[in-house]
Amino acid sequence: MHILITGAAGMIGRKLTERLVKSGELNGQAIDRLTLADVVAPAAPAGFSGKAETLTSDLSAAGEAQRLVAGRPDVIFHLAAIVSGEAELDFEKGYRINLDGTRALLEAVRAQGESYHPKFVFTSSIAVFGAPFPDAIPDEFHLTPLTSYGTQKAIGELLLADFTRRGFLDGVGVRLPSIVVRPGKPNKAASGFFSGIIREPLAGEEAVLPVDESVLHWHASPRSAVGFLVHAAGLSRESLGPRVNLTMPGVCCTVAEQIAALKRVAGEKVAARIRRTPDALVMRIVAGWPSRFDARRALALGFTVEKSFDDIIRAHIEDELGGRIAA
Amino acid sequence: MHILITGAAGMIGRKLTERLVKSGELNGQAIDRLTLADVVAPAAPAGFSGKAETLTSDLSAAGEAQRLVAGRPDVIFHLAAIVSGEAELDFEKGYRINLDGTRALLEAVRAQGESYHPKFVFTSSIAVFGAPFPDAIPDEFHLTPLTSYGTQKAIGELLLADFTRRGFLDGVGVRLPSIVVRPGKPNKAASGFFSGIIREPLAGEEAVLPVDESVLHWHASPRSAVGFLVHAAGLSRESLGPRVNLTMPGVCCTVAEQIAALKRVAGEKVAARIRRTPDALVMRIVAGWPSRFDARRALALGFTVEKSFDDIIRAHIEDELGGRIAA
Repeated sequence: MHILITGAAGMIGRKLTERLVKSGELNGQAIDRLTLADVVAPAAPAGFSGKAETLTSDLSAAGEAQRLVAGRPDVIFHLAAIVSGEAELDFEKGYRINLDGTRALLEAVRAQGESYHPKFVFTSSIAVFGAPFPDAIPDEFHLTPLTSYGTQKAIGELLLADFTRRGFLDGVGVRLPSIVVRPGKPNKAASGFFSGIIREPLAGEEAVLPVDESVLHWHASPRSAVGFLVHAAGLSRESLGPRVNLTMPGVCCTVAEQIAALKRVAGEKVAARIRRTPDALVMRIVAGWPSRFDARRALALGFTVEKSFDDIIRAHIEDELGGRIAA
Repeated sequence: MHILITGAAGMIGRKLTERLVKSGELNGQAIDRLTLADVVAPAAPAGFSGKAETLTSDLSAAGEAQRLVAGRPDVIFHLAAIVSGEAELDFEKGYRINLDGTRALLEAVRAQGESYHPKFVFTSSIAVFGAPFPDAIPDEFHLTPLTSYGTQKAIGELLLADFTRRGFLDGVGVRLPSIVVRPGKPNKAASGFFSGIIREPLAGEEAVLPVDESVLHWHASPRSAVGFLVHAAGLSRESLGPRVNLTMPGVCCTVAEQIAALKRVAGEKVAARIRRTPDALVMRIVAGWPSRFDARRALALGFTVEKSFDDIIRAHIEDELGGRIAA
C-alpha cells in the first residue's frame, strides 16, 4: 500500500506518519511506500522499512498536485491548509492554498483517468459552521461559515462529495474538533489558545487567555485526531453513502471547565499560570464558532474520542511530556 | 443607477431586462445605464432611454469579468450559468462557467477596491439540496447536492457569503424553484419537462413526460422569478444578516397535480397531448432533487409567489400566449 500525506510536516501530519509507520499497515494491508509532502520539508519517517519520499511542495503551484499524485497512492490524506487566523488575515493566500490547492489535488486524481480511484481523506473543520446555532448541531445543519477558512473548508467538502459521486475517487471528509493539546510552539490558528492555556502551564510557563471563560467549545486530542483519519480511511463507500463529510465526536466544555480539569490533573499552582488578556480579533472569530454537536453519524460509523477534558490533558502528558509536569 | 445583468440573453435575463426597462427604476432610483452580457449577444433593450451596452462575453475567459465590472455597476444580477443537465454531461465546462465564472466576477468586484461595493444578486437553485430530505426542508437544512450543477451553485453561495462578510460587496443569493412555464424551445436543463408538459400542449403540440406522475416538485412562474430578483436587490444588509442565501417560496405539487391543473385551466383535450416516455438520466437527476420547503425566511422578508399551479399556468397564458390556447 502506498500512502500520500499532504501537510505531512504539520502536527497532525507528523503524528499520523508516526502511527502509520508504527502499525506498518492500513486497512489490513502492509504499507510499503510513503510520500510525505509539505511546503517545508517533512522529516524522513523514522523506522520505516518501505520506500519513503519527502517532497517540498506548494500544492497550489502549477504541476505540483500532478507530481504528488503521479505515483498513484492508494490512500491520500490531504491535511495541507492555511490555518484560520492566517486565512482571515491574508484573503488571497487562504483561497490559494485552501481552495485552489485542494481543487488542484482533486483534479490531479481525476486526470489520472478511470483506472485510478484512491481513498481520499480530507481534513475539514467545525469552522464550516457559523452562528447562530441550535443547542446541539445535528448532522443535517447547514454550513454558514463566518470565516474565510471555514468557507474554504466547506467548499472543499462540496468538491470532495461531487468528485466522489462522479466516481473519480473515494472521498471522506473529517470535520475535526479543535485539537488540544497541540504540542510545540503556538501557531497562527485563532483556536491556538485552547491548547496554550494547558500546554504552557504544564511546561512551567505563562499562557495567555484571549477570550472569556464562558466560551464553550468542542475538543479532541491529537491522538484522537489521528484515530479519526485512520478510521476514515477504512470506511467503505457503502457505509458512508452520498454524504461523505462527517462531524467528528468531541468533548464539549467551557474554558472554565478546561481550567478546572487542569487543576484536577496538575494542581492549582499550574493552573495559576494562565493570564487573562482579551483579544478582539480572536474573540470575534471564536464567537462565530460552534460549541456542541450531535455527532451521531460519526459515532454510529465507529469513530471514538476521549470521554472528558481530563482525559485530553492526560493524553498530552503521556504523549508529549513523558508523564512529567513542571511543578 | 447602473445595472449589469450576466446571462442577459437567457429567459430570466430577458424578462428581468424588460421589467427593469418598463419600470424605469430600481430601489427608488432611476435606471440610466444597463450593461447586458451573455455568451450570445443579448438584444438591445427595447424602449430604454438611458445608455445601454450589450456584450458578448464568456465570464470564465481571462479579463472578461474585469471588463464587465469596469463600469462599476451599482447592482449586478449574476444569472449566467450552464444548466443542470449540461453541467452533468460536461464536467469541465460546468465547473469552468458555474464555479470559475462566478468566482471571476466576484474577484473582479473585489479588485475594484474599497470604494466600490455593489449589490450582487446571485441566482442559486434548489438543486443545492440533495436527498434524503425531511418532509419540508427548513432554512437551516444542509447543502448536499447530488449534481455537479448543485455543487457549483452551493460553492457560489459560500463564496458570495464570504465576499459579503469581508465587505467586498453586498450579496444576496436567491435559490430559485423550478421555473415553469418556460417560454420558447426546451433547453438542456433536466427540469425542462416540468415546463414542456404545459407549454407544448397549450401550443397544440405533443410533450414528453420522462418521469413518473408521482414526482413532487417546487415551482414558480418566470414572472415570480423576476419578482424575486428585483425584491432581492432591494433588501438591506441589516434585514438579511450573515445568511445571505435564501430559499424562495414556491408552489409544491406532483406532476399529476400539474396535469390536473392543466385540465382545469385548458381542458381535457389539451392535457391529452402529454406522452409518457421514461428517461433514466432525467429520473435519476430529479430523484435527488427536493420537493417541498419551509421558506419562512424568504416569506418574512417579503418575497411572494403564486398561490396554485393553476395561477402559474394562467401567468404563462397571459404573458406568453396573449390569452390564447390552441384548441
